[in-house]
Amino acid sequence: MLGDTKINELAKMSLREPILVQGLPGLGYVGKASVDYFVEKLKPTKIAELYSSYLLFPDGNLGINISEDGTYSLPKYEFYAYNEKEPNAIFLTGDAQPSVTGQYEVASMVLDYAQQFGSKMVFTMGGYGIRGGNETGAVYAVVGDSMLGDRLKKMGAKLAKGGAVTGAAGVILGIGRQRGLQCAGLLGATGGVYPDLEAARAVIQMLTGLVSIPVELKDLDSEIEDMRKKMERFRRTELEESKEGEEKQGEEGKDRYIT
Amino acid sequence: MLGDTKINELAKMSLREPILVQGLPGLGYVGKASVDYFVEKLKPTKIAELYSSYLLFPDGNLGINISEDGTYSLPKYEFYAYNEKEPNAIFLTGDAQPSVTGQYEVASMVLDYAQQFGSKMVFTMGGYGIRGGNETGAVYAVVGDSMLGDRLKKMGAKLAKGGAVTGAAGVILGIGRQRGLQCAGLLGATGGVYPDLEAARAVIQMLTGLVSIPVELKDLDSEIEDMRKKMERFRRTELEESKEGEEKQGEEGKDRYIT
Amino acid sequence: MLGDTKINELAKMSLREPILVQGLPGLGYVGKASVDYFVEKLKPTKIAELYSSYLLFPDGNLGINISEDGTYSLPKYEFYAYNEKEPNAIFLTGDAQPSVTGQYEVASMVLDYAQQFGSKMVFTMGGYGIRGGNETGAVYAVVGDSMLGDRLKKMGAKLAKGGAVTGAAGVILGIGRQRGLQCAGLLGATGGVYPDLEAARAVIQMLTGLVSIPVELKDLDSEIEDMRKKMERFRRTELEESKEGEEKQGEEGKDRYIT
Amino acid sequence: MLGDTKINELAKMSLREPILVQGLPGLGYVGKASVDYFVEKLKPTKIAELYSSYLLFPDGNLGINISEDGTYSLPKYEFYAYNEKEPNAIFLTGDAQPSVTGQYEVASMVLDYAQQFGSKMVFTMGGYGIRGGNETGAVYAVVGDSMLGDRLKKMGAKLAKGGAVTGAAGVILGIGRQRGLQCAGLLGATGGVYPDLEAARAVIQMLTGLVSIPVELKDLDSEIEDMRKKMERFRRTELEESKEGEEKQGEEGKDRYIT
Repeated sequence: MLGDTKINELAKMSLREPILVQGLPGLGYVGKASVDYFVEKLKPTKIAELYSSYLLFPDGNLGINISEDGTYSLPKYEFYAYNEKEPNAIFLTGDAQPSVTGQYEVASMVLDYAQQFGSKMVFTMGGYGIRGGNETGAVYAVVGDSMLGDRLKKMGAKLAKGGAVTGAAGVILGIGRQRGLQCAGLLGATGGVYPDLEAARAVIQMLTGLVSIPVELKDLDSEIEDMRKKMERFRRTELEESKEGEEKQGEEGKDRYIT
Repeated sequence: MLGDTKINELAKMSLREPILVQGLPGLGYVGKASVDYFVEKLKPTKIAELYSSYLLFPDGNLGINISEDGTYSLPKYEFYAYNEKEPNAIFLTGDAQPSVTGQYEVASMVLDYAQQFGSKMVFTMGGYGIRGGNETGAVYAVVGDSMLGDRLKKMGAKLAKGGAVTGAAGVILGIGRQRGLQCAGLLGATGGVYPDLEAARAVIQMLTGLVSIPVELKDLDSEIEDMRKKMERFRRTELEESKEGEEKQGEEGKDRYIT
Repeated sequence: MLGDTKINELAKMSLREPILVQGLPGLGYVGKASVDYFVEKLKPTKIAELYSSYLLFPDGNLGINISEDGTYSLPKYEFYAYNEKEPNAIFLTGDAQPSVTGQYEVASMVLDYAQQFGSKMVFTMGGYGIRGGNETGAVYAVVGDSMLGDRLKKMGAKLAKGGAVTGAAGVILGIGRQRGLQCAGLLGATGGVYPDLEAARAVIQMLTGLVSIPVELKDLDSEIEDMRKKMERFRRTELEESKEGEEKQGEEGKDRYIT
Repeated sequence: MLGDTKINELAKMSLREPILVQGLPGLGYVGKASVDYFVEKLKPTKIAELYSSYLLFPDGNLGINISEDGTYSLPKYEFYAYNEKEPNAIFLTGDAQPSVTGQYEVASMVLDYAQQFGSKMVFTMGGYGIRGGNETGAVYAVVGDSMLGDRLKKMGAKLAKGGAVTGAAGVILGIGRQRGLQCAGLLGATGGVYPDLEAARAVIQMLTGLVSIPVELKDLDSEIEDMRKKMERFRRTELEESKEGEEKQGEEGKDRYIT
């Protein structure tokens, strides 16, 4: 299937050794939520999209996502470039993870693309699963070299001491390190709530502390507040609906899988 | 496995920018039933067959289908061409969907083939799963661009507002849109009865309304009537058979999987 | 993984349009048992072996089979050639079926190999699953063209009237027919006993009736008699062992899977 | 995915027909534990690493392993070379087995690499599953030719008499034999305790008896003693913890899978 992954460049931009910041769907949606926040606040330029036959839906099928206006698109990665301040950055977000078979191919193409711009640092944002306890705001780090680990520890991160990072976040760190890039994974402690904006806040703060990216957390704080209220409301609605039995079945034309 | 999908051309035909109309086995058999109806009524010319190591049986195995006379053939797609009126059309039907691994390869080859004839529009027919309610005859549409969505809405289609179209129907729309083709999926609301000829009727009517294809629905209406009676009879027979216990086991030599 | 299937030629032999007779492990072991009988009786020359990363164990793993003397080998196909009488024949037996992914590649290579010798006819032997009833000795046939079907019917075969032949037997018939070869599957009715020598006898008799291969069934008849006695003894032993509880666990060093 | 397996050479070394000794994670960790012991005692030079998109975690995912200091690496094979005495040796250890799809490719590349140095003998160390009985210290052997089997029998090994060796240990023996290399699998009887150092001791002793490798077993004996004590302690702790309920959940930052 070689050749079924491709990057469509949408705009040419001049970047100086941009850091690559990847956040894809995963545990607690921490990674995607944090990169999406950078995109929302910094309004970087969308420079490319990656399409691949390996970007599957969570149920293991291929297909298209339908938008609210009835239009659709294949699952994709999106690359956004920011060059207003130092360091420059490429933010990578997406709506799917590659299948196991495609992880190497996709991660390699992402790194090839970023390295064209001279990227030397790779950060992946993600969630770190915890059960119980209170670690809200804690960030666990995995690092390509221990010097970076020391810097992150001074900033309050805990170093993960074992286990594994699986999926796209792990694979790009693994291949990145093999290519001699500086790499770190910033993993926000999460109980798995979806999306865990508090965990996202923690990893955003960690990254902006490490490399100066001019992003204010104020808006995120109010989003977290909003989210809390929404969750509250959602839980109440759910409770009421479960009382009403199974009569109501969601808004017409929405959120169904069609095969 | 590249190279294990191939299209065998059976006849040369001159076509003017034919629309591609795909209907494969899927939910409620809506897609296949509607394209098969076009083939039955318009008597287009069979111009090609597609064979692929990715066209698996529903149980995930490869093999051959046995006909009533003991002959057999590999699962395949069939392409029928119609050039008597404008627009010209290629009807694509088949007896299997590709496996996930082969979806991109097969859909790409189908589009390559249709684009050789100058195809600029792609329609996939399919089913849209609904539970309960009464939406008989409703057509949900997903569209490559919102102008086409507006036209379909005026004709009575509902636009899908979320979710996903998985499988061959979704993938060909996704790749088609990337290639700049006008694409739409016409999905007949179905409870999943098999085959759902009423849902097929709805999507046929929607398509012939959008692009003028001279197909009468009269015959389909009587087929629907026949089907209703058959279902009735089938249900009665089933009831009786379940009374007779498990003694009778289907006609000799029929409908068995052999491995 | 292209290139991981290969045929090692062991001997050069001159063959005149040999028929290809394939019998691999499958339902009731009918196919393998019948081809193995031809090999045992005709003592044809082993001319080639096929190895492939697609020849998996029944548990889906790759590995080696251990013989009684502690030596081992990878799962393989074996090709035996017979050129003493007309028609010449290539007998194909093996100790595994390819995985779904490899079915096309392996079947294509087998046909390539046989066609080098001018093969124009392909027979696959196999089992045809029946529940209850008494069809011992019945042979179901699937055929590439109906003329061959008529000949087989005259000889007492029943034509299968629907369903599918999955696995290696089906795929080679499917591809063989596409290549314009005369093809038939001879499927002995079997309840699935293992190995079903009576079903094997039936398909052997059908094949030797269709194309004259000088094989006597006398020895097979006494093997069937032996097998009956062995089964009897085995059932009795099993019964006794189940009485003794789980203390005895098979002979040391035998029949275990090692990983 | 061809090309996603590669060997990174770390040092050039001169070796005379080194034997290849492979021990990967598997049943009772016998293989890996024995090769790791050779590496620990002989202090051979690490000459290469193999990385592959086929080296998956036990859960079937790709990713990175995290070390105690927060650094990480992709799963890999490691090659260590020993040339102080005859025979020279290449010890191959690793922290994962390839997926089924990758077994042939990875084993072939390992053999290619060893054969560059003139390797003519391949040994795989592994576990041989036994239930109950007392076979501590027993070694089962599978051999490429019966002469080697005779030598091993004289040294006390039992020859396996059937069954299969699946996974990386089996595949490399299978391909090695096809390439005309002398091959044997030394499989220590194990009930599956993890890691089974006593089984590892048995296969080490068998190998050093067959080919003279200057390794003392003294240290291993005390490790076995230590292990016994640890297991004892572990069992006791486990018992106590299960009494304490589920309150304690392992040390912070350790041994979790992150996705």
